[in-house]
Amino acid sequence: MYRTHTCGELRIENINQEVTLSGWVQRIRDLGAMSFIDLRDRYGITQLVVDEQTDASVASMLDQLGREFVIQAKGTVRERSSKNKNIPTGEIEIALSEINVLSQSDIPPFTIQDDTDGGDELRMKYRYLDLRRAPVRDNLILRAKMAHAVRNYLNEKDFIETETPVLIKSTPEGARDFVVPSRMNAGEFYALPQSPQTFKQLLMVAGFDRYYQIVKCFRDEDLRADRQPEFTQIDCEMSFVEQKDVLEMFEGLTKYMFKETLGVEVEDFPWMPYSEAMEKYGSDKPDTRFEMLISELTETAKGKGFGVFDAAEYVGAIAAKGCSEYTRKQLDGLTEWVKRPQIGAKGLVYVKCNADGSFKSSVDKFYSEEDLKTWAEITGAEAGDLILVMSGDKEHIQEALGSLRLEMANQLGLRDKNIFKPLWVVDFPLLEWDEDTQRFYAKHHPFTSPKPEDIPLLDTDPGKVRANAYDLVINGVEIGGGSVRIFNSELQAKMFDKLGFTPEQAQAQFGFLMNAFKFGAPPHAGIAFGFDRLVSMFAGLETIRDVIAFPKNNAGRDVMIDSPAPIANEQLDELNLVIDLKEKK
Amino acid sequence: MYRTHTCGELRIENINQEVTLSGWVQRIRDLGAMSFIDLRDRYGITQLVVDEQTDASVASMLDQLGREFVIQAKGTVRERSSKNKNIPTGEIEIALSEINVLSQSDIPPFTIQDDTDGGDELRMKYRYLDLRRAPVRDNLILRAKMAHAVRNYLNEKDFIETETPVLIKSTPEGARDFVVPSRMNAGEFYALPQSPQTFKQLLMVAGFDRYYQIVKCFRDEDLRADRQPEFTQIDCEMSFVEQKDVLEMFEGLTKYMFKETLGVEVEDFPWMPYSEAMEKYGSDKPDTRFEMLISELTETAKGKGFGVFDAAEYVGAIAAKGCSEYTRKQLDGLTEWVKRPQIGAKGLVYVKCNADGSFKSSVDKFYSEEDLKTWAEITGAEAGDLILVMSGDKEHIQEALGSLRLEMANQLGLRDKNIFKPLWVVDFPLLEWDEDTQRFYAKHHPFTSPKPEDIPLLDTDPGKVRANAYDLVINGVEIGGGSVRIFNSELQAKMFDKLGFTPEQAQAQFGFLMNAFKFGAPPHAGIAFGFDRLVSMFAGLETIRDVIAFPKNNAGRDVMIDSPAPIANEQLDELNLVIDLKEKK
Repeated sequence: MYRTHTCGELRIENINQEVTLSGWVQRIRDLGAMSFIDLRDRYGITQLVVDEQTDASVASMLDQLGREFVIQAKGTVRERSSKNKNIPTGEIEIALSEINVLSQSDIPPFTIQDDTDGGDELRMKYRYLDLRRAPVRDNLILRAKMAHAVRNYLNEKDFIETETPVLIKSTPEGARDFVVPSRMNAGEFYALPQSPQTFKQLLMVAGFDRYYQIVKCFRDEDLRADRQPEFTQIDCEMSFVEQKDVLEMFEGLTKYMFKETLGVEVEDFPWMPYSEAMEKYGSDKPDTRFEMLISELTETAKGKGFGVFDAAEYVGAIAAKGCSEYTRKQLDGLTEWVKRPQIGAKGLVYVKCNADGSFKSSVDKFYSEEDLKTWAEITGAEAGDLILVMSGDKEHIQEALGSLRLEMANQLGLRDKNIFKPLWVVDFPLLEWDEDTQRFYAKHHPFTSPKPEDIPLLDTDPGKVRANAYDLVINGVEIGGGSVRIFNSELQAKMFDKLGFTPEQAQAQFGFLMNAFKFGAPPHAGIAFGFDRLVSMFAGLETIRDVIAFPKNNAGRDVMIDSPAPIANEQLDELNLVIDLKEKK
Repeated sequence: MYRTHTCGELRIENINQEVTLSGWVQRIRDLGAMSFIDLRDRYGITQLVVDEQTDASVASMLDQLGREFVIQAKGTVRERSSKNKNIPTGEIEIALSEINVLSQSDIPPFTIQDDTDGGDELRMKYRYLDLRRAPVRDNLILRAKMAHAVRNYLNEKDFIETETPVLIKSTPEGARDFVVPSRMNAGEFYALPQSPQTFKQLLMVAGFDRYYQIVKCFRDEDLRADRQPEFTQIDCEMSFVEQKDVLEMFEGLTKYMFKETLGVEVEDFPWMPYSEAMEKYGSDKPDTRFEMLISELTETAKGKGFGVFDAAEYVGAIAAKGCSEYTRKQLDGLTEWVKRPQIGAKGLVYVKCNADGSFKSSVDKFYSEEDLKTWAEITGAEAGDLILVMSGDKEHIQEALGSLRLEMANQLGLRDKNIFKPLWVVDFPLLEWDEDTQRFYAKHHPFTSPKPEDIPLLDTDPGKVRANAYDLVINGVEIGGGSVRIFNSELQAKMFDKLGFTPEQAQAQFGFLMNAFKFGAPPHAGIAFGFDRLVSMFAGLETIRDVIAFPKNNAGRDVMIDSPAPIANEQLDELNLVIDLKEKK
């Protein structure tokens, strides 16, 4: 037997027991007559003591040990003379009678402790060592707990967890697929799923009524900081429900996860129409932990001789609390910030609401004290606040103000990681016009139902049609999204028509779903949560990489196993494939 | 609201309630003055009644309905005059006041009932309709319950469910990989995992201590009846354990699953060495629901002038209970059966142990009554039994007798699906010699630890080395397998050497694991269960296909979505690939 207890288990009640522990040597302190080893495993750290006078044979082994050696230690539990209140085992120590080295260790490339001295590259290459660090391991334990909470809740609600296939079929709509060449079907390919969307809808047609799955999905996209080529979704679908039934169910799930894993009670989730989110927050994923809402100044700003505003479709502003004393340099910094290509504003107008009730703006030439006072009233600015104004195309400037709002909140420390403000954003547009390809794209996906009252608009003004689609947003992050689905093959065909598919193309790509709808499809709706993102939010992390055991880097590489990699020519031959790098630019 | 209750919910207590149900029309019976609709959903069937005199408007809708239409039905619960004891809702019916058609249905290609009239082809093409049938759906509900039981048990035991990557690296050892071309890393490929073996071992190096995952795995093999290109494993690994710890833990899991999902208590699992399984059962996956063990007759059969036995390395027999009156035709049938290429025996000798105590054999010329009596003693045959004898190479004939044993058990009805006899087969050989390539292969996999006492044999007689490897076998089916792992980089290097790898090849393919072992690897061991097979055994089914929601056929095709399929030339270009079918034969 390798151990009688773990390294996190022994307490004052165990005194005088003979025990055997196994674990990793965290550190060794040689204090002359006495030596101490901190022995670590997943469950904790226990102090081992060697008294050189009483046990010379054990003491003589200490020289052979080093950090991260795996040892088995036998001895007697005794009370510590100087207790360590910081760890649960801090009241006891083990007086050693025997040490066996189970595995030696080279000197690790970085130290295994909460704050690592390893850079990202090293941490990824030696991910198995990085995972020994408590904060990294705890993220993954949190992930496992959250997954279990999801399953407990949904099983309790009669959802059937059903596995859908990983080897499916490539569809041109949406992001780029990863494909898998088939050897048995020469020249043909499977694709890895971007989501199990059509399969979960087929399960509804099959009468499964309530489905979920915690499932790996795949997208071959150029990776940004917070993307991985493979990611995990909590994927759900329900039959015989309306939008409110779905939102209630998954609001319940979200609250349950907060309570079960963080012990946090969150308030009921408000519903915010997409149009309101854009107008007030400049974003379809509003961070509602703080106010600083966007106000429109278009009417009051026009006609005073300031050509920039006069020419603009839209003038909008936010009021930053207590920032009236921002320096020239700070204001210039903000102007530079909004001019960055990611924001793309032409400039920034400011109005300082001075403590004495007066105003000082960068457009004093054009606007009177009275004008600025009106702006302050509209934006809700008070003495001591700073109004920041931008103008231009409505949609663009709302988004720019939304970004500036977040930046100001960062500067003001308003984005507290320990506060959670979930909400539902609803009534998304059904379609989005793309100038490049001169066609509509589905904002959510082609199976999303228009709001029944907007169906007539499909023929007259498709861009105005609102969808029965919804996103779960927490603290400015989109955590989940879904929709009520079309369950009628004629409406589905019309939708494909609006998206520019010929009936033949629609049939070729989604025929199996439209055919299924011909055999009695129930009304249904669903949602998918980005599980990696949800875990990283619960863990208070910035990126999803730290909640994934073996993530890939921004080039889609696993640097630990050195993948992807070339394959043998025999493999290529069997797959009837030839690599042709000539066409690479 | 689409429904107030499901179709499986209403009871006599609900009488006089106004209810709304939604579901599929199972059938309509028009009895003149009254019409009945059986309305079905996942939860059950409820009888709806339309009285044509009292509600003409509802009655007039009946003509528009057909099988598998999705309807919403409103009405009042009332007691049935003739109760149906076979269904939980059989005491009530709904007197209808309103029907709304939610979806129409074409006439389905086969009838949605427990015994389908659809052939396999149709069932697969319209899988979403096949899944409406209660037996098929119940298999998938059982699957979900079993998965939840696994998680409950292992979470309770401090296992951390951890997701490992799906996009990994191809390794030539083992079965053929599915590969995924990388666009971002031109000319390189990911591979889909055949199992998360190395990742779970790295998690042990990372100190995770106890890991599990219910995970999709992939093998690009030519498919047999009971294989799928993607399949699901319950994958587990533990640190600081010996073989007995692992077997205890997963025996506990298996018993828990039987109890939780089938309500069956199974006995403690015996441990049977591989050598005993081969000698007594002619198989490394013995069906222990019945006896009929193999006995060796080599010594007693030789030297009596029967050239076939005299020349044989091995003579063995089984005694089939109560078969002494098998006819000439039956015996010829058995002889033909063992001569089939799958068995490959040259012939079959029989000895009838007659009811009167005399013997009648096909080799009476060579063996006296006394000789045959000795055979009967050795095989345990009694009056009325039939002894079946084969001879040849030991290993081959033991396997042939093992197959014959199963065939006789089938004929005798000894393989009862409702009896479960699990056991552990242990002490497998570490290595297997392959004549074709003239090298050893790992019987389990290259990370399996030899038994410590057999390590010296590695240099002198590698084929004799036994492994700390084990299989869970139930009713003659291998349900799971695992091993204690090598956790020492030198022993691991030696193992690769025995498998014919140069150090460079071993480093190139498994360097990341051997390197990890240099930083303090704990002793560890694990197991993987074939989840599809486990579910199909629990469900009493012959194939795994019926416990998979959307399976592929024997050509690896999903005939419902018609996959795999050609992809667009632009996709191939982006992946730097050209299809070359010329080399196909």
